[in-house]
Amino acid sequence: MRIKLAQDGGMSDRVLGVLGGMGPLASAQFMVRLTLLTPAGRDQDHVPAVLWSDPRVPDRTQGRLSGGEDPLPWLLRGLRGLKAAGCGAVAIPCNTAHGWYDEMTGVGLPILHIVDAAAEQLRQVAPSGTVGVMGTAAALFMRLYQDRLEHLGWRVIVPTDGAMGALVTPAIARVKANRVAEAYEPLAEAVRGLAARGAQAVILGCTEIPLGIQAGPWRELGVPLVDTIDALALASIAWARG
Amino acid sequence: MRIKLAQDGGMSDRVLGVLGGMGPLASAQFMVRLTLLTPAGRDQDHVPAVLWSDPRVPDRTQGRLSGGEDPLPWLLRGLRGLKAAGCGAVAIPCNTAHGWYDEMTGVGLPILHIVDAAAEQLRQVAPSGTVGVMGTAAALFMRLYQDRLEHLGWRVIVPTDGAMGALVTPAIARVKANRVAEAYEPLAEAVRGLAARGAQAVILGCTEIPLGIQAGPWRELGVPLVDTIDALALASIAWARG
Repeated sequence: MRIKLAQDGGMSDRVLGVLGGMGPLASAQFMVRLTLLTPAGRDQDHVPAVLWSDPRVPDRTQGRLSGGEDPLPWLLRGLRGLKAAGCGAVAIPCNTAHGWYDEMTGVGLPILHIVDAAAEQLRQVAPSGTVGVMGTAAALFMRLYQDRLEHLGWRVIVPTDGAMGALVTPAIARVKANRVAEAYEPLAEAVRGLAARGAQAVILGCTEIPLGIQAGPWRELGVPLVDTIDALALASIAWARG
Repeated sequence: MRIKLAQDGGMSDRVLGVLGGMGPLASAQFMVRLTLLTPAGRDQDHVPAVLWSDPRVPDRTQGRLSGGEDPLPWLLRGLRGLKAAGCGAVAIPCNTAHGWYDEMTGVGLPILHIVDAAAEQLRQVAPSGTVGVMGTAAALFMRLYQDRLEHLGWRVIVPTDGAMGALVTPAIARVKANRVAEAYEPLAEAVRGLAARGAQAVILGCTEIPLGIQAGPWRELGVPLVDTIDALALASIAWARG
């Protein structure tokens, strides 16, 4: 079941798979940004894509930190579905799911790594020095960003345990519950805390976080932010353009 | 390749297929609205869905009115892909594509008809009387809305040929080219024209139109508008809830 037809031309040869639903608002917004960031004059100039939005995937943070159900079988199921649909590579707009990256590559579909995509954008606003990373407790525990960015030369700081418990973790849950506007203030406070500790830029390393931040006056925060939804969309467009 | 797992519960038994890409911004926004309109407290409460976003489907209006390539084989291909992915019903956030509704039902997947979904919302703002319908030239030519709504008791008016050529058709093209903000004024002018001719409500019967209208101060137009993206999302949530 491939969706390539003979009259394809240009960027349309490549079909992007999107393993989403984690959360569903983040992957829907990923599709919006994938579209708006693509230079296009008509429908047919846009990136063909299949979004597998399965919000039933067990919570990634609970799976890694609290003995919750393992999300891996669900992730593999989605990847196999995207492969069967004819996709040539996969973007996963969920940072924490990248904790299962190595196991997921076994399906045989290239996965565009969200941390590489974020590093590419980070280079443009803070080429070196100290950067802050916000994310789920599991993503920080697995050191998804810390190890990769420190290897590339940045110094990485993350929210304190207090800020995680009082600000970041509850804000992520609010976005998943469609209470997006209520997520802004705690996320902004966490950004301010990282900036006060010397962060020259902050990576919004959970795809719920840019949704919450953009619900308020984030430009007033005065520190460059890296939106991992946009970063992954830009990497996907670059892949689609071959 | 079904994505049902044994531990499913609640609304998660039903996977919605979304035949999108027509245009891609409209189907991405459909996924956003499907999420935000769902009562949910966490990821796992949301509607599982697969979006087949293939913007390469030949232009529906050209296919119907100008001897352009037939979109039907592409529509059938997408529907078969969604069926193979385990979807139980399909929403198509493109009004014009519903001109091929009868042919599409041959795939054997129930299709939630966008005109029925819009009529359901219209009932709440204008239970009878005269309503305006905006759409692509092909959708109006095929009388997708006119026949169905007149059968249900409404009187239907549509933009003049002059308004279609000068306002509605160019505005739809702007949305497809990511020039969304520039679509507002011509669409607002077309709404005003229908209201001046007696429309008590206006159906935005092309999924690009609500995107353009919402880029401006549409509340000032003073006439109830039926957003066919939201209408189809609400019908989809009702289906998913069984």
